[in-house]
Amino acid sequence: MKKFMNAVDSMVAESLEGFVAAHEQLIAFGAGRKFVRRRTLTTGKVAIISGGGAGHEPMHTGFVGPGMLDAACTGHIFTSPTPDQIVAAIEETDTGAGCLLMVKNYDGDVMNFEMAAEMAAAHHAIDMVVVKDDVAHGSRSQGRRGVAGTLIVEKLIGASAENGAKLQDLKALGDGLNHRIRSMGVALRGVAVPNTRRETFVLGADEMEMGVGIHGEPGRSREAFTNATEIVEALCTAILADMGEVAPANALLFVNGFGGTPSPELYLAYGIARRFLESRGIPVSRSLVGTYVTSLDMAGLSVTLAMLTDAETALWDAPVSTAALNRLR
Amino acid sequence: MKKFMNAVDSMVAESLEGFVAAHEQLIAFGAGRKFVRRRTLTTGKVAIISGGGAGHEPMHTGFVGPGMLDAACTGHIFTSPTPDQIVAAIEETDTGAGCLLMVKNYDGDVMNFEMAAEMAAAHHAIDMVVVKDDVAHGSRSQGRRGVAGTLIVEKLIGASAENGAKLQDLKALGDGLNHRIRSMGVALRGVAVPNTRRETFVLGADEMEMGVGIHGEPGRSREAFTNATEIVEALCTAILADMGEVAPANALLFVNGFGGTPSPELYLAYGIARRFLESRGIPVSRSLVGTYVTSLDMAGLSVTLAMLTDAETALWDAPVSTAALNRLR
Repeated sequence: MKKFMNAVDSMVAESLEGFVAAHEQLIAFGAGRKFVRRRTLTTGKVAIISGGGAGHEPMHTGFVGPGMLDAACTGHIFTSPTPDQIVAAIEETDTGAGCLLMVKNYDGDVMNFEMAAEMAAAHHAIDMVVVKDDVAHGSRSQGRRGVAGTLIVEKLIGASAENGAKLQDLKALGDGLNHRIRSMGVALRGVAVPNTRRETFVLGADEMEMGVGIHGEPGRSREAFTNATEIVEALCTAILADMGEVAPANALLFVNGFGGTPSPELYLAYGIARRFLESRGIPVSRSLVGTYVTSLDMAGLSVTLAMLTDAETALWDAPVSTAALNRLR
Repeated sequence: MKKFMNAVDSMVAESLEGFVAAHEQLIAFGAGRKFVRRRTLTTGKVAIISGGGAGHEPMHTGFVGPGMLDAACTGHIFTSPTPDQIVAAIEETDTGAGCLLMVKNYDGDVMNFEMAAEMAAAHHAIDMVVVKDDVAHGSRSQGRRGVAGTLIVEKLIGASAENGAKLQDLKALGDGLNHRIRSMGVALRGVAVPNTRRETFVLGADEMEMGVGIHGEPGRSREAFTNATEIVEALCTAILADMGEVAPANALLFVNGFGGTPSPELYLAYGIARRFLESRGIPVSRSLVGTYVTSLDMAGLSVTLAMLTDAETALWDAPVSTAALNRLR
């Protein structure tokens, strides 16, 4: 496993330093380098704060900027940020309208964000949205995991906050979205965590892992590798079955790479998913294809389907200016 | 080698179909699906047309849109588009002010673009810029290769064309840039071309290939793999030595991933390159970090340094709206 790094212990910090330097007009380190924040905050806007383990880049630091997040806290690889980091982000970015914490549904993340919320509650209005979009489940205590759909929830809530929505309305928006966003992933190759240098699961030359998450955890089932059409249609079928009755709405189709899959393969998969959905009477109204929610350099992809109202679609279309997501209008 | 595909023969076409569908508000197929073009052309603007082999995505199709290219022609993997494709793009996108062809310096590309220019010359004003930014050389006939610096030349020329520059001025801009843009790449893993399913070079667990291009061709030298600081400083040292005397100018630093390297490693490398340049008295004024000019899923990266005038820097900052590159202002 060859990586561009100097030492395992310093790689996350060195990478963040380069990231902040490359985007210095947009973002800055918060106090003590505990988090990354927008360079300029908007007074009176609800602060949107997210975070999670490193190894999922560009999520979440790449989503900090006008139209999306105010701050993102990064932990060690595949490890939640500490409550201390999250409290520091709350204290620095709450300009009076409170904070909404955006959390992916993993035990460690939920625990640390809840602890931070309690620690800061005396001086800040705080609420939390826990994203749960994975068709495949995590541990029994955890339930559905938060995966690529997190990007969609953060984009919509970020846009709504920019429009002046209040904390309770943003919380309701996030909770409502959880019922209408579903994702499922497939891996063609496992992922080696730098600390251990061992792959979390090892696939044979003719195997793939269906239902994987974004931490190298094994998926629902190991299956024979097959062509892109069969793989992508299987993902879409599982998503539609899990979403249940789909009310008439605007479908947002998001094909996400896990880090080691080049964009032409993602676009090829997108074309298959789109035709499949359309054949099921679901026209695709908005699209996103790219490497946004990763599992280090894992070869694989996920398909996310979000069924959005017209108002939510307008939030998706709203301008955004971050390192990873830019939209002119 | 597991890839998301249905068949080797159809993978480029299927991927392009998904790409055009995902970005249908911005782009469209040209006649006969021979190229990708902006959905809306600007009458009286010089048409900027590029192209090259598939396998380098998002270049060049990802650079089609307002502020950058008008059309891009894609060949088979690592194979030039045919003169027929290029002529079709010229005929469809020349709105009266002529066409500038943007070509990376490879024998096959140069030959086919020149042939297309001759075929279309009777009815169209045509000129050509051949990008040559690689510190490492290709074949004897070829000289310097065109690699990641191509993105910078296409962005600046695209912005200048948008501002109403004439064909001869765009040609002069491109030729002038060739003297002030230098790139060098390193691979940690070779690349397997789908047709042959064999890696073009095989690296040991402790080896890296310095001076690689973007077609899986071997580089200048095989060296012992080492830490990121030593690798990146070696690339920067070679670039500065090759560029020669650097006039006072605005430095644009671009760290580009070859397809299989996750963004945190690119940002870590960026931080090293930036500090190194600043220690040599070259402050970095503009930055780009990401996976833009690829060699399928090769693990590796390149560093590009461009020394820009103030006018060129303003062109870099100009708005652009493409699938791969978006800038608000």
